[in-house]
Amino acid sequence: MDLITATYLATRPDRDPEELAENIAREQSLELVRELIPDAIAERLLGQVLAVDRLDQRRWALKIGYPAELASGRIGQLLHLLYGNVSFYPRIRLTGLALPDELLDELAGPRAGIDGIRQWISVFNRPLLATVLKPRGSEPEYFAGLARRFARAGGDILKDDQNLIERDTANFRRRVSACARAVEAAADETGRRCLYLPHVAGSGDFLHARLEIVAGLGLRGVVMCPWVMGLETAAAAAREFDLMWLAHPAMAGSFTEADDHGVSTAVMLGMLVRIAGADISIFPGSGGRIASHHEPDEAETCHALTRPLGQLKAALPCTGGGKTLELAPETARRLGNDCAVLVGGDLLSRGERMEASVASVVSRLNAD
Amino acid sequence: MDLITATYLATRPDRDPEELAENIAREQSLELVRELIPDAIAERLLGQVLAVDRLDQRRWALKIGYPAELASGRIGQLLHLLYGNVSFYPRIRLTGLALPDELLDELAGPRAGIDGIRQWISVFNRPLLATVLKPRGSEPEYFAGLARRFARAGGDILKDDQNLIERDTANFRRRVSACARAVEAAADETGRRCLYLPHVAGSGDFLHARLEIVAGLGLRGVVMCPWVMGLETAAAAAREFDLMWLAHPAMAGSFTEADDHGVSTAVMLGMLVRIAGADISIFPGSGGRIASHHEPDEAETCHALTRPLGQLKAALPCTGGGKTLELAPETARRLGNDCAVLVGGDLLSRGERMEASVASVVSRLNAD
Repeated sequence: MDLITATYLATRPDRDPEELAENIAREQSLELVRELIPDAIAERLLGQVLAVDRLDQRRWALKIGYPAELASGRIGQLLHLLYGNVSFYPRIRLTGLALPDELLDELAGPRAGIDGIRQWISVFNRPLLATVLKPRGSEPEYFAGLARRFARAGGDILKDDQNLIERDTANFRRRVSACARAVEAAADETGRRCLYLPHVAGSGDFLHARLEIVAGLGLRGVVMCPWVMGLETAAAAAREFDLMWLAHPAMAGSFTEADDHGVSTAVMLGMLVRIAGADISIFPGSGGRIASHHEPDEAETCHALTRPLGQLKAALPCTGGGKTLELAPETARRLGNDCAVLVGGDLLSRGERMEASVASVVSRLNAD
Repeated sequence: MDLITATYLATRPDRDPEELAENIAREQSLELVRELIPDAIAERLLGQVLAVDRLDQRRWALKIGYPAELASGRIGQLLHLLYGNVSFYPRIRLTGLALPDELLDELAGPRAGIDGIRQWISVFNRPLLATVLKPRGSEPEYFAGLARRFARAGGDILKDDQNLIERDTANFRRRVSACARAVEAAADETGRRCLYLPHVAGSGDFLHARLEIVAGLGLRGVVMCPWVMGLETAAAAAREFDLMWLAHPAMAGSFTEADDHGVSTAVMLGMLVRIAGADISIFPGSGGRIASHHEPDEAETCHALTRPLGQLKAALPCTGGGKTLELAPETARRLGNDCAVLVGGDLLSRGERMEASVASVVSRLNAD
């Protein structure tokens, strides 16, 4: 039988680790005690304990196998299966995940991935520089000016701040059109495209209207916040409009930043968003205003986004959260060639010297 | 100016508490240092520190006011605003929330609420008994049989397990129709309706097709998991089809069960799901297989769901997670008259005696 294998880190388990593992296997699969599950159903659908390994004085690794059928071929149901009810168990952290090829094929992963992004911006051999359009409350012309300056100076990826959201569709169209035109104008000058990603949010008609505008403008992708919108909502929206998407990690810190609880960054902002089809994943990494306090997170998350995984394309790791231009080259050296560094406020603070600073950092990224 | 006020509990703050409060106010509103924000925008949109109160040796309450405009009248954007980026800050827990009336009116809250549920099932003066249809893998006839037995015995609310999800729309229709017919047949016998809530999930056409079937069958509501699907996706789906909905807390434990991080149960599974329009909210409460280890959670969550709040209707508190029939009356006494107790596996374990057990518990709930 094809199994989804999930590894949970149990810290100071509240009962015998073997028994805890059996409980999790049941809780997450059929949510009933064994004697109430008919044998035929148990054989087909009950989670199985694959291994219980003691790691140190207080921690155990519990490896559980779930029949792949339980995910119903849907990323939302996979989240349920991996961590839905067990999120209420004390000191259980999801740290590992492996899926059978058939399920990977069905979930499909990124449409464009790193290669598609590099094709679009014609940058094949260096780490990428990304920035954010902010602050909310500015006029469309201000954002467009910023977009044009960044693109002309050689910046690679330009994303809307995740708090840019207009109630009125016409206002969204006005702002996003202005930025799209600015990026096009810059491309006409430089001969190279910058990837502009407007932020879209919400659901139903509200979301749909915004995606139609983005696609209609010939833009290639969007920013979405899957841990606010729903991972499956975001994935399905991008697929419907054949757009790339950047997954912003808003709200996910409650999972990733806990020590003995939640979901590791590599699984949450690496594996899960890649499986769901995000082409770019932002995660905090090290340094800057927002940084993970989990040491190995950065490398493991990059690995999860880019390592061979069935037929899935690699997603672009992007570290963000108050990173500085000065540290961008060093950060990129740590993350590897296939990464982006997101610099927001520090770039804005350069004022008149913004273009020169961008150009200088891009040339350092090129040289490294 | 109308402010959304959020209270954050800071435990062992990593810097001066006043400075931390200022940082959060900026991070969550405009995500820029003050000197980069034009004055006109700061005046309109920058978050403000309203109070910094020391609670004990290690904890401070940071009260921040956000201009209501920042929520853009949308529940998803409100989540961003309250906890998006700050979810990555160490030891910050959202524990309090107050919204201006205008925003409450716009978000609207439950369509039916406690009164609407009581109208539907004609039970006006006692706590309610709810159960779950499981396990996944059973035939529609099995679920329908269970539904009929529970409804005939006098049970009030019947929900699908949140892992019931068919890939194929026809299979969903088959199972849900069978259960709907069973509940109708029971109502014909007893003269009283049981509220049956099928589980719907996903997004776009997949979700839409299932909601159409539910509404087409004349059923009054659904189960959704807003912390998997997205709170706004769930809210909008229910509104579009004029259905009641029960919010299941899958995945939310990472927020609520942390000690010094995340979001309190009362805000997350109380205030936020009520504002989003859930008519019923399941939370762990005390006792049973899944129980919160936060002592005051139960009472505070009930209060958040039912207290006067603008024009919003009260949502029904429902405690679940392995609760037993035996303890249902005692649990209901603790939670108050306007509550439901969800008993799943323990009810199934009664076998032949299920009807008698249900009838006995309902009569005890009546008598108390």
